Amino acid sequence: MIVVLKPQAQKEEIREVVNELKAIGMDVQVNEGVECTVLGVLGNTYEVDADSLTLHPFVERVMRVSEPFKKANRKFHPDNTVVDVCGTKIGGDQLSVIAGPCSVESEAQIVQIAKEVKASGASFLRGGAFKPRTSPYSFQGMEFEGLELLKEAKAETGLPIVTEIMSPKHVERFDRDVDVIQVGARNMQNFDLLKELGHSKKPILLKRGLSSTIEEWLMSAEYIMAGGNPNVILCERGIRTFETYTRNTLDISAIPAVKRLSHLPIVVDPSHATGMNWMVTPLAIAAIAAGADGIMVEVHNDPKNAKCDGAQSITPAEFDVVMKQLRSSAEIAGRTL
Amino acid sequence: MIVVLKPQAQKEEIREVVNELKAIGMDVQVNEGVECTVLGVLGNTYEVDADSLTLHPFVERVMRVSEPFKKANRKFHPDNTVVDVCGTKIGGDQLSVIAGPCSVESEAQIVQIAKEVKASGASFLRGGAFKPRTSPYSFQGMEFEGLELLKEAKAETGLPIVTEIMSPKHVERFDRDVDVIQVGARNMQNFDLLKELGHSKKPILLKRGLSSTIEEWLMSAEYIMAGGNPNVILCERGIRTFETYTRNTLDISAIPAVKRLSHLPIVVDPSHATGMNWMVTPLAIAAIAAGADGIMVEVHNDPKNAKCDGAQSITPAEFDVVMKQLRSSAEIAGRTL
Amino acid sequence: MIVVLKPQAQKEEIREVVNELKAIGMDVQVNEGVECTVLGVLGNTYEVDADSLTLHPFVERVMRVSEPFKKANRKFHPDNTVVDVCGTKIGGDQLSVIAGPCSVESEAQIVQIAKEVKASGASFLRGGAFKPRTSPYSFQGMEFEGLELLKEAKAETGLPIVTEIMSPKHVERFDRDVDVIQVGARNMQNFDLLKELGHSKKPILLKRGLSSTIEEWLMSAEYIMAGGNPNVILCERGIRTFETYTRNTLDISAIPAVKRLSHLPIVVDPSHATGMNWMVTPLAIAAIAAGADGIMVEVHNDPKNAKCDGAQSITPAEFDVVMKQLRSSAEIAGRTL
Amino acid sequence: MIVVLKPQAQKEEIREVVNELKAIGMDVQVNEGVECTVLGVLGNTYEVDADSLTLHPFVERVMRVSEPFKKANRKFHPDNTVVDVCGTKIGGDQLSVIAGPCSVESEAQIVQIAKEVKASGASFLRGGAFKPRTSPYSFQGMEFEGLELLKEAKAETGLPIVTEIMSPKHVERFDRDVDVIQVGARNMQNFDLLKELGHSKKPILLKRGLSSTIEEWLMSAEYIMAGGNPNVILCERGIRTFETYTRNTLDISAIPAVKRLSHLPIVVDPSHATGMNWMVTPLAIAAIAAGADGIMVEVHNDPKNAKCDGAQSITPAEFDVVMKQLRSSAEIAGRTL
Repeated sequence: MIVVLKPQAQKEEIREVVNELKAIGMDVQVNEGVECTVLGVLGNTYEVDADSLTLHPFVERVMRVSEPFKKANRKFHPDNTVVDVCGTKIGGDQLSVIAGPCSVESEAQIVQIAKEVKASGASFLRGGAFKPRTSPYSFQGMEFEGLELLKEAKAETGLPIVTEIMSPKHVERFDRDVDVIQVGARNMQNFDLLKELGHSKKPILLKRGLSSTIEEWLMSAEYIMAGGNPNVILCERGIRTFETYTRNTLDISAIPAVKRLSHLPIVVDPSHATGMNWMVTPLAIAAIAAGADGIMVEVHNDPKNAKCDGAQSITPAEFDVVMKQLRSSAEIAGRTL
Repeated sequence: MIVVLKPQAQKEEIREVVNELKAIGMDVQVNEGVECTVLGVLGNTYEVDADSLTLHPFVERVMRVSEPFKKANRKFHPDNTVVDVCGTKIGGDQLSVIAGPCSVESEAQIVQIAKEVKASGASFLRGGAFKPRTSPYSFQGMEFEGLELLKEAKAETGLPIVTEIMSPKHVERFDRDVDVIQVGARNMQNFDLLKELGHSKKPILLKRGLSSTIEEWLMSAEYIMAGGNPNVILCERGIRTFETYTRNTLDISAIPAVKRLSHLPIVVDPSHATGMNWMVTPLAIAAIAAGADGIMVEVHNDPKNAKCDGAQSITPAEFDVVMKQLRSSAEIAGRTL
Repeated sequence: MIVVLKPQAQKEEIREVVNELKAIGMDVQVNEGVECTVLGVLGNTYEVDADSLTLHPFVERVMRVSEPFKKANRKFHPDNTVVDVCGTKIGGDQLSVIAGPCSVESEAQIVQIAKEVKASGASFLRGGAFKPRTSPYSFQGMEFEGLELLKEAKAETGLPIVTEIMSPKHVERFDRDVDVIQVGARNMQNFDLLKELGHSKKPILLKRGLSSTIEEWLMSAEYIMAGGNPNVILCERGIRTFETYTRNTLDISAIPAVKRLSHLPIVVDPSHATGMNWMVTPLAIAAIAAGADGIMVEVHNDPKNAKCDGAQSITPAEFDVVMKQLRSSAEIAGRTL
Repeated sequence: MIVVLKPQAQKEEIREVVNELKAIGMDVQVNEGVECTVLGVLGNTYEVDADSLTLHPFVERVMRVSEPFKKANRKFHPDNTVVDVCGTKIGGDQLSVIAGPCSVESEAQIVQIAKEVKASGASFLRGGAFKPRTSPYSFQGMEFEGLELLKEAKAETGLPIVTEIMSPKHVERFDRDVDVIQVGARNMQNFDLLKELGHSKKPILLKRGLSSTIEEWLMSAEYIMAGGNPNVILCERGIRTFETYTRNTLDISAIPAVKRLSHLPIVVDPSHATGMNWMVTPLAIAAIAAGADGIMVEVHNDPKNAKCDGAQSITPAEFDVVMKQLRSSAEIAGRTL
C-alpha cells in the first residue's frame, strides 16, 4: 500500500500517520522526496482501511498495490486447486459439466433429466429446490421435498448433486444431503451465509453477483476460505450492463482474469448469462476455448412448460449435440470431457 | 400483458396458447388482425412467466403492460403510506432525518453522537451493530453488544434506533429491540430474509441494491408486504455505474419515479451514494428538493478514527450546519423538518 | 505519478526506467525501500503513457496522482470561469436558463416559443437545426434553414441562441451565426470536431457523453481549451446505466464533483436525462440545489406533435411554473434567476 | 408496432390516433377488447416516433414489435453478406485476420510489422494514421504521412490496409487510398461522418460504441447502408461496464446476437476489449468459437516503446503463436484461416 502525503505535510504530521500505521502492525518505509513524501506500507495491509487514511488532512492519496485477498490468491498458492466431489474432480484436466433443470418439479422429471444428461456425458446434476425469484408470486421451488427428489435422482444415476442454498438456517441439512452447495448471484455478498458456509465440509459453487467486480467476487470466496473451507468453485454467469438484448452480459474475460489472480476453478453458466437457449452452444464452446474448467447448463425435458427460466433451457437432445461439439473444443484446449 | 403471435400461426396453435393461459386463470381477448394475431391477457398476470411463453414456436413477443407489483403499487393504494415509528412519522409532511455512525464502537461514542444529532434535530439514530464488509478481515461490527449500546443511546435520548439485520436468525431479536430494521443494499434480494421480515411487526428500511432496477426494488418491497408487513421505507443509496470518481451514483430520478409508481415513503442516503463527506450537503439538499421524505446521514465524532466508512462521515458540527441548510429547502418543498 | 517496481528489479533495470522517464523531460525521485523501489515522477506527467510503462517486465504498477487535465483544472485556476455571451453571463451569481424546442420546425413555432420562454424569464433560446438521430429515417432537422429561423427568433426577442453542431465543416458558419455552439453527447469524443472548436471564438456548451467519466468529459473540455478557446460550459445530461425506467440516469453528484475539479461552469439538462416531461421540475430544482449554474430545458408549444423528443418536452405554461419554483430554490442557493 | 390505449379512451379519441397514424402512411388494425383497445400498426414503422405517441393522454403504452433497422436486417436479406476487399473476402468461409500496430510510427516499423504478420497468415494490415486520443497532449498520429507509409507497406506486402477516419473532410482521400475505412468506437454515432461514408465506395469497418446497444450499433450500420454503401463490417471491441480489471468488457454474446439479427459480417478486437496483451489469445480463440468472422489484433515489434496502447499489443512472434492456435479453432468452427 502506498500513501502519498501532501507537499505541505510537516515532519510531525508524517510521524503521526506512520505511528498510526505501526500501531496496527504495519511496517512503514518513509520515502522523503523533494516535492512530497511517499509512505510504503508493508504487512497485512488487508486490515488497513484505505478510506479512513484519506481523512488525514495531509494525506493526498492512498493506493493499494496488492490484492485484498489472500487465501484465494494465486501468489500464495501457485498450483491450481482441484476440488474433489465424490471422486469427480473440478479444476483438473477433465472438464466438468453440470446439467439439469432450473427447478426440480417432480420425481419423474428430475430422474428422467438426470438419466438423459448422464447418458450424454454430464458429470453433475443441477436442480433448484429453493428458488430465488424476483416476484413473491412466482413459484418458489419444492424446497425440502425437491431436495429429496434430487437425492433419488442421485441414487438412480450416481450423479453428484448441485443445488442452491438460500438461508443460513439450512446449512446443516445441505451439508448432509448435497454434494456441491451453490450460492446464487443475489447472495454473493450475503456475508452471514458465506461465514456459515466457511464451516461446511462441502464444496461451494459461488456465482458471481450481478454487478460484482472480479475482486469483490474473490473477496466473497475469501470469506468462505477464511472460515476454513478451501473448496470454492467460481461460476461466471453474466453481469448486468446497459445491453437489453441479452438478460446479462457474459464476461468472458473474467475467465483468464480469474485464472491469473486465483488458483480456484471457474465454470461458466451460459444459460443465465444470456437467457436464450439458442445462445447456449456458442457461448459454452467459447467459455471452454477461453480456459474455463467446465460449464453449467440448464436442461429441461419440456422447456415450454418449465416452472422457471424455460426460455434459457435446452432439451436433452440439444444437450447431447452441445456435448459432442464441446468434445472437440476440449481437445484443442488440452482438456478431456 | 400482450402476446404477439407470428404471422404464420394457425388457428389451432392460437387456441393452444389461449387455453394454456386460461388454464392458469387468465382472461384472454383474441384480436385477429390482417397480418398477425395479438392476445390481450387480463387477470393476475404477475403469475404468468413471460419468458416461458416466448418458447412457443409461434409466439413472436410478450410484453407486460402493468407493473409486476401489487401491494407496493400506487394504482391500488393512491394515498401515501405514512409509517409510524414510536410516534414519529416517516412519509408525512415532516421530513425524517436518520443520523449516526456507520458502526457502533463504544458506549461513549454512540451516546455522545446520539445526543449531538438529537440536539441538531435528527429524529432517528442509526448505527451498525452487524456490518456487511467486503473483506472478512475488516471489522465486522460489535454485533449483539452493539445492539445493547444502541438501546442505551435510545434510553438516554429517546431517539428510535435504525440498524441493519444480516441474518434471518436474528429477526426475533431485532423485532424486540430495534425500532426500524434496515435491509442493506447487498441483501435487497436475499429473499429468505425478506420473507422472514414479512412476519415482523417492525418497519423495514429497504435499501436499493447496487445494480437493482427500480422495479426490482419495489418487487423486494412486495416480498415483505406480501408476507403481511405493510411498513416498508425505501432508501436510495446510489447505484453502480462506470463512473469511478464517486463510490456510487446517486439516482436522483428514482425519487420522483418511486413517488409515481408506489405509495411507500423514500429516504436518501447521500453518504453511501458518494463515499465523500464533502458531497453530503449538496446531495442531501438536492434529495429534499426532488421530493424525498427524508435523509439518512453518517455522522461520526471522530471520522479519522472511525472503524468504517470514515471518508464519508461528517462531524456533529458539520451535521448541525447541514440541518440548518435543509430547513429552508424543506420549506420550499412544502415540508417541515 | 508513482511507479512501483517489482521486488526483484535490479539496479540497472531501475536505472533504465528512470532514464526513459528523464528522456521525456520528467523529474524522477527514486525511493529505495526494503522490499521494493518506488519512483516518484514529477513534471508534465500528462505526456507519460502509463499503460506502456507497465510493459516493463519489472514494473509492478503505475498510479497517477494528479489529474490528466491542466487548463480545465481548478488547481491552476482557482476562480470560477464566467462565460460572457452577448453580455449575459454563465457561471456567475445569476443562474442561466436555456429553453426551447428540441428541433426548429417553422418560423411561427420558434418565434412563438422564444417569446414565451423569454416572458417567463429564460435567458437563452435553444433549438436544434442539425439533429443527431439514432435512425437515418427520422427527421434530421431543418439544417441551415433552421439556423436562419433561429436568427429570426433572436432578432425578435434578443435571446442569444444555443444550437448543436454536427460537422467540422460547419464551424465557420456557426462561428458567425450562433451565440453558444453545442457539442452533443454523442460527439463528446469527436476529437476532430473538438480541435476545430478550439479555434472558434464562440463559447462551447459541451454535453457529457452517454458513458463518459467525469475525467474524460474534462479532457474533452481540455481539447477545446488547448486549442485556444477558454469558454467552455459543461452540460450534464444523464449517463447510461442498467436502469430502464428513465432514458438515462442524471448524475447529480457530477455537479459538486465538477465544481471541485474544475473552474468551468456547469448546467444541467433534466429533459434528456430522464426523457419524461413530468420529471423536469423536480430534477431542475434538485440540480440548482446541488450547485448547478443553470438548466437547459426542452419547451415545445405542441409536444404531442413535436418532430422529436416530444415525450420529454414541457409546454410554455408548464415552463412558467417551473421558473416560479426555481426562483425560491435559486434564493436558497444564494443565486438569482 | 403495438399501441395500447387506456381503458377510458373514447371512440373519437381512438379515431384521432388512428387518423394520425394513417396520415403518415401507416396501416392500422383496431382490436377492440373488453377492457382496452389495442392498435396494431403496420407499414414503415421506422418512421413513427414512439415517444411522441405516448404523449396522447389516452395512450397507455407503445411497443415496437419489429427492429428499427431494415437494410441491415437479416429478415429482409437472409444470406450472409460477404464483403470483397481487393479480392479477399470478409464474412465467407475463410476467417479474416487484421493485424498491425496501434499507430504507424515510421516506414521501417510499419513495413517490418506488415511483413511479419503476413508471414504468419494475416490477411489485412491495420495501423492508425489519425488517432483518437483521450488527451490533447498525447501523440495524435502521423496523419497523412502515416497514410503514405501504410501505402508503402501495402506495396511491399500486398496486404490491403485498414485505417481509422476521424473527419468527414477526409472521406475523399480515404476513399482513394484506403481499402477498408474504420470508424472508431467514439465515432459510432458521429452521424455526419456516417452519412458521408454512405457515399463512399469502400467497405466500412464499424466499431461498436463504448456504451452502445446492439440495436444502436446496427442503426449506425443502417445509416451507412441507407446512403448507398452496403459493405459494412461490424467490429465488437468491448463495452464499458463497472468492472475495472479489464479496460472494457468483451461482449461475446454480441456475436451470435448480430448473426441472428443481421446478415453483416462481424469481427472481434480482443486487444481493445481488454487492454492486456496476455488476454489476446484466449479471447481471440473464444471469439472464433462463438462464430466471429475474424479478429483484429494489435501487433507491435516493440510494444514497450509503442507510441500508444503498448500494454495491449503483442509481438510478431506472439502473433505467430496465436495464429497457430486459431487454426485448430477455425477448423472446429468449420472455417478456414
